Amino acid sequence: MNISMYQASVPVCIRSLKNLVNILEKGATYAETKKIDPHVLVNSRLFPDMYPLSRQVQIASDIAKRGAAQLAGTEAPPFEDNETTLPELIDRVQKTISYLDTFKPEQIDGSEEKTITLQVGQNSLTFQGMPFLLYFVLPNVYFHVTTTYDILRHCGVELGKKDFLGKP
Amino acid sequence: MNISMYQASVPVCIRSLKNLVNILEKGATYAETKKIDPHVLVNSRLFPDMYPLSRQVQIASDIAKRGAAQLAGTEAPPFEDNETTLPELIDRVQKTISYLDTFKPEQIDGSEEKTITLQVGQNSLTFQGMPFLLYFVLPNVYFHVTTTYDILRHCGVELGKKDFLGKP
Repeated sequence: MNISMYQASVPVCIRSLKNLVNILEKGATYAETKKIDPHVLVNSRLFPDMYPLSRQVQIASDIAKRGAAQLAGTEAPPFEDNETTLPELIDRVQKTISYLDTFKPEQIDGSEEKTITLQVGQNSLTFQGMPFLLYFVLPNVYFHVTTTYDILRHCGVELGKKDFLGKP
Repeated sequence: MNISMYQASVPVCIRSLKNLVNILEKGATYAETKKIDPHVLVNSRLFPDMYPLSRQVQIASDIAKRGAAQLAGTEAPPFEDNETTLPELIDRVQKTISYLDTFKPEQIDGSEEKTITLQVGQNSLTFQGMPFLLYFVLPNVYFHVTTTYDILRHCGVELGKKDFLGKP
């Protein structure tokens, strides 16, 4: 039977983004309980030249929505990257999930060898669909969701691996 | 054509673990250059009750080797979890890669619906092969590789996303 391109992409990204919503909600509750200025966590980072939490969330959202769109040969809706609070970031992730929910398996299945070209800064990267999904989209989404988790954990939010993995 | 269970597991984990070797090597060079006691980075963590770097690497290694073994219906070799330096951790990851390299596609292909039972503390979790791979093994491996990256980055090691994603 094997794994279809849809099975390995859309539901996997939705699951990770739902977990991200839960992680951000725990961050928001923590900030409220501890009376932390709402902008502090959003602007927290692990090192001065690393992206802050807000950017980590925006990139996870972008990679997931563009990844599915590219596999389906369509264009993802642009989001403005203007979120400054955790509730706004949660809303951004929810919008991303709603967008991913619109994809039907037949739009993505069969894209294993589809040529995907990405503009990354000044360079353009060309992939086939399957390596694009397995070696670019998924690790990137997990990287930015994990780093969001790590930033919040570093700031004292009580999170556990279950929050990252989510429920089956 | 679809994605086979082997394609979505063994080469994906090997790629991530090779990137982990590279990340740890950059950490080792940094410690040497800055004359940092070799045990400091290995014991660094992002919050007092989070696992230190050494444990992050050990778990990434365990999840990858046990994941492949479980899909293939065999048992992974136990490692001792006694690494105390970055070179020892690098060696552990290399041994994990060598073990993964022994798998042939036919050992893992067809395991989509295989019943996999995991003992996690006092609980046992039961999965089918495909959700086990997509929702447990891969996110877990990426979580611990990313957290290793984040700990080193937090300690000042110059790493970029390219180190995490690796070369095609």
